[in-house]
Amino acid sequence: MRVIEVAGSRPSRIVVGERLEAVRRYLPPGARVVVVTDENVAAAHRDRFPDAPLLRIGTGEGAKTLDTVRELYHRLMGLEADRSTFLLGIGGGVVCDVAGYVASTFLRGLRFGFAATTLLAQVDASVGGKNGVNLEGYKNIVGTFNQPEFVLCDPEVLRTLPAAELVNGMAEIVKHALIADADLMGYLETHAAGALALDPAVIETLVCESVAIKAAVVGRDEREQGERRKLNFGHTLGHAVERTLGVAHGAAVSVGMAFAAALSVRKGLLSAEEHERILRLMRALRLPGSAAVDCERLKEAVGRDKKRAAAQVHFVLLEGIGRAVVADIPLTELREMIGSFPGIVGTEGAGEAV
Amino acid sequence: MRVIEVAGSRPSRIVVGERLEAVRRYLPPGARVVVVTDENVAAAHRDRFPDAPLLRIGTGEGAKTLDTVRELYHRLMGLEADRSTFLLGIGGGVVCDVAGYVASTFLRGLRFGFAATTLLAQVDASVGGKNGVNLEGYKNIVGTFNQPEFVLCDPEVLRTLPAAELVNGMAEIVKHALIADADLMGYLETHAAGALALDPAVIETLVCESVAIKAAVVGRDEREQGERRKLNFGHTLGHAVERTLGVAHGAAVSVGMAFAAALSVRKGLLSAEEHERILRLMRALRLPGSAAVDCERLKEAVGRDKKRAAAQVHFVLLEGIGRAVVADIPLTELREMIGSFPGIVGTEGAGEAV
Repeated sequence: MRVIEVAGSRPSRIVVGERLEAVRRYLPPGARVVVVTDENVAAAHRDRFPDAPLLRIGTGEGAKTLDTVRELYHRLMGLEADRSTFLLGIGGGVVCDVAGYVASTFLRGLRFGFAATTLLAQVDASVGGKNGVNLEGYKNIVGTFNQPEFVLCDPEVLRTLPAAELVNGMAEIVKHALIADADLMGYLETHAAGALALDPAVIETLVCESVAIKAAVVGRDEREQGERRKLNFGHTLGHAVERTLGVAHGAAVSVGMAFAAALSVRKGLLSAEEHERILRLMRALRLPGSAAVDCERLKEAVGRDKKRAAAQVHFVLLEGIGRAVVADIPLTELREMIGSFPGIVGTEGAGEAV
Repeated sequence: MRVIEVAGSRPSRIVVGERLEAVRRYLPPGARVVVVTDENVAAAHRDRFPDAPLLRIGTGEGAKTLDTVRELYHRLMGLEADRSTFLLGIGGGVVCDVAGYVASTFLRGLRFGFAATTLLAQVDASVGGKNGVNLEGYKNIVGTFNQPEFVLCDPEVLRTLPAAELVNGMAEIVKHALIADADLMGYLETHAAGALALDPAVIETLVCESVAIKAAVVGRDEREQGERRKLNFGHTLGHAVERTLGVAHGAAVSVGMAFAAALSVRKGLLSAEEHERILRLMRALRLPGSAAVDCERLKEAVGRDKKRAAAQVHFVLLEGIGRAVVADIPLTELREMIGSFPGIVGTEGAGEAV
């Protein structure tokens, strides 16, 4: 078991390798605990939850709404929750995002912590204190920055996850290696098989290293003014692919990382050898590097939130493995590059990430 | 014009005596400004607003809802608001509470400031960073702590306010004097007529002193753990009177302060002379010291959020004028005291504050 202390306006502890049933040890003594989870997590692990009232939300991104938040406020009022109530989110990114937002706004702030049950939540949602919900098709448009007091990461619970869910987490781990840690890249290359087999020791290392990287970036830039933008590596195109194809986040981000790596080569920042090494690792980890998608729809989806034609986007490039740099790139250049990127296989059908 | 710097996790400036039309000078250069206001304030002062898109909400406490918040999110998305958008609330407590909450949660936090157009908002909502909305009959149950970058307080705009609105502010000023500042008590006693006539110099002094007191209390206890409870002086019974009678907040708090002063005498903390002096000042400022209200309903309304019979409430008493102390008082004792408090004139009708 390893514990990573995350700095911030309120400090947070990431506990990696601890069993889910031990979560009660991390709860403040005497606190009235309320658990927020979803149907799937409750079905798989409920017998390992602490003895506390249980609020269930729907599963998947569709549950990340203001209506869900309002329902949780209502349920908390029914439970007579007060400032001494501690909200424990047990689940993946959606549960953590929603529970964190509710905890940050109910009674102007309850204490809260998470047991993260997906690889993505363990490496990504666990650090940075971002929470929130979607609105009218825009992701995370409503939310706050507020760190949980702890995030417990049990590698064993990952065994019940579907493969697509593991891809989501693995893509973020690769992202963290590429933007900040050449050593983690090397570890991934030699332990790809162990990672895919969910070897607990390998997973524990990957989660720890990944969390440490994100914690360091976030610690330097808690409110997302600059440095933290590096964490968007692969996400500019990734979000567009996700929106256009409706594929899992991790698959979309993988395609986005391949695109950003190719653009880094074109800009003369990354060598062809490094580029090839990245693509090789992605294949070893079964992360898609290309997508069959309607090119015009994809171009339109990129920077959809930028209505002005001349807009630039903050785009994250690599100037080597483990070294990210943020550049302002005109949307027009980005769209032109999409047209010539070999990872985008034009199609007029529904498309897929491959 | 006087400027009070309020400490906090993010500092805030209260600018007292500045004209409303000068608010544009306080906006960050280059920011895209969006104004949030209500129908009444727009009708009275719109020609003095900065040139910016205007979002109007309904008037009064009934507009302080999650539906209003959601509508504002929707309008902000329509305006393509982004992280560079600055939200300017121009209005009273409701506008400031709602605008502050929306600014604190949209895109995980926009920059924001207020021009406070009621006496209550100038002396109370301006400091402390509390924002939020009501839900299912509970006040401010959803919200955050987040200070505006500035609050502009123009004494001239108070001239268009109805009398009940001035009582709301005056009650809070008296509260601040009673809990923390014997000098302000003296000033109020000698300037009661000027205060009622809205003499700009008197109002400027009252707002400044009042803000300084609240800022000092909040500065010592930003997240409401202890010291800040003193600001609830008069509010325990006040909230119950407000709920039971539906009278204005200030009138209800005035009755609550008279009750708390009487309880302080009974506890041997406050002298009969000091008690009489307080009641005399309240009369001079036309603040009600008693209410005709159904005693049983009032008892039931006190501590309505405490379902456990043995519950204690944190009750603020005076151990002299300008010196507050927080005591735990059993709900049963409080209810018994209500029955014997001469300021509560039993009635089975609708009742009123007198």
